[in-house]
Amino acid sequence: MTTKAAVATVQDYLFSQVSEIDSVLDRWVPHASVEPASIHRAMRYSLFAGGKRIRPILAIAAARSVSDSPDGIEHAACTLELIHTYSLIHDDLPALDNDDLRRGRPTCHKVFGDAMAILAGDSLLTLAFEVLSRLPLVDAERKIRLVEELARASGTVGGMIGGQVNDIEGEKRTPTAHLLDSIHKAKTGALLRASVRMGAIYAGASEEELAALSEYGEHVGLAFQIVDDVLDVEASSESLGKTAGKDEAQQKITFPAVYGLERSRVMAEEERLAAHTALRMFDDRADRLRQIADFIVQRKA
Amino acid sequence: MTTKAAVATVQDYLFSQVSEIDSVLDRWVPHASVEPASIHRAMRYSLFAGGKRIRPILAIAAARSVSDSPDGIEHAACTLELIHTYSLIHDDLPALDNDDLRRGRPTCHKVFGDAMAILAGDSLLTLAFEVLSRLPLVDAERKIRLVEELARASGTVGGMIGGQVNDIEGEKRTPTAHLLDSIHKAKTGALLRASVRMGAIYAGASEEELAALSEYGEHVGLAFQIVDDVLDVEASSESLGKTAGKDEAQQKITFPAVYGLERSRVMAEEERLAAHTALRMFDDRADRLRQIADFIVQRKA
Repeated sequence: MTTKAAVATVQDYLFSQVSEIDSVLDRWVPHASVEPASIHRAMRYSLFAGGKRIRPILAIAAARSVSDSPDGIEHAACTLELIHTYSLIHDDLPALDNDDLRRGRPTCHKVFGDAMAILAGDSLLTLAFEVLSRLPLVDAERKIRLVEELARASGTVGGMIGGQVNDIEGEKRTPTAHLLDSIHKAKTGALLRASVRMGAIYAGASEEELAALSEYGEHVGLAFQIVDDVLDVEASSESLGKTAGKDEAQQKITFPAVYGLERSRVMAEEERLAAHTALRMFDDRADRLRQIADFIVQRKA
Repeated sequence: MTTKAAVATVQDYLFSQVSEIDSVLDRWVPHASVEPASIHRAMRYSLFAGGKRIRPILAIAAARSVSDSPDGIEHAACTLELIHTYSLIHDDLPALDNDDLRRGRPTCHKVFGDAMAILAGDSLLTLAFEVLSRLPLVDAERKIRLVEELARASGTVGGMIGGQVNDIEGEKRTPTAHLLDSIHKAKTGALLRASVRMGAIYAGASEEELAALSEYGEHVGLAFQIVDDVLDVEASSESLGKTAGKDEAQQKITFPAVYGLERSRVMAEEERLAAHTALRMFDDRADRLRQIADFIVQRKA
């Protein structure tokens, strides 16, 4: 595990990354004064609500572990946050998880109404692909690989929407390790893995590097989900910025529900170590990825 | 106007096009047995509900007016139907237009529930971009231009979602020509124009050809919307396959509401002629586009 000093350093790094990513997002999303203003206000409300930006941060760090200066990677990286935010807005709708609180604020539909929340989600999803099509500094071949990667990771077969469907249909079913695995791998795992892969593809990774980074992405994705589930049981709504204890109330299939809290914590640590192992072929340019894996397991919110 | 024999011919042509497009869509959308099966059933239910496929048909006809054999155009064309169908599913939701009937059948959310309808829409939208990224027979440069064209036409600034927002916010406001123009141009116009443009881009149109075809697309798009509004007043729900007379009940801003029925019919005919004029630089390879413009104005449903 890292020392306290190293943790302080990685937190400074993450903090600076968040503000870089936010400024790129600000350039791509139409200003709240652009007509029709209401939809742009709704998109911006959810997008700039203090997210951790873990997916773009992973993409940038992966690109930098392959190339010294992957110029413009922040543009490609921010599309992952557009997709993530759209999925949160739609997940929070009354027809789905019916959540009132997200990132410490009322959810999009509570502020703008259900219709505008549905359309704001659709708009962020659409914008992600527009941004990829208009990336500066990278050739069409690479852009199209990024479009494919993002679309597949967001889709129904092994992708984010598929996981969301399994999650909804899994409610009130007996929590099994197999069911849990199928939900998590798709629902959060696919986009986290794609984050690392998109960074690697952007930077021109070799097949071998891409395979190693994909493996890292899978372990980090699993660690992230386990810790998320554990925090839902342990932490308060205030520190999470969303309603705590909701998984159990909704009879969601989670790691604590299947394995118990203690075993879940051990599993997260195992995934952290496996993420480090996956990076063994990389030099110190991959240190940020190593620190991110540590941070994901140690975080308290 | 075309003769009765020519109408029969264009209807045969449209019929054969519909079945070609349906078979391509069937190849791209995961089978209803692929897990998670429920989402694929919902996607297919709305996609294969007897749509007219006017957008893919326009794309294919535009490509053929530029090139003798735009091989594989049907794959690019079908992404327009994926986008169109997603927009119908989301528009019909209780939070938006709250419609129970579409293409003669209960709407997606009436059959599969609101949650699954939201996710089925998201999935079709995402799949459209996956298909573009995986188009056979065309280089990355052209694929990425198609991604940009489709994303912009579907987006918030002058695109489909922007028009949808204006439409929702326009309800109960005084119907003016200016407001009508801004709603229609974005809500249905942008995607119809993009249909023609995507076909042209796919087939390698020159700048001059692309400009002429864009103009054709604008006129055909306007004609289509005027006739849609007129039919909503004149036709029965049975022949439309959706609830007739809904525009007036919802106080929607339509062409008959602004201009009256008689003037609207004249305007549709003017747009048909303008569409023909836009095609003056094209030889008989553009005859299908000419026939489609006629068909759009003459249709009864």
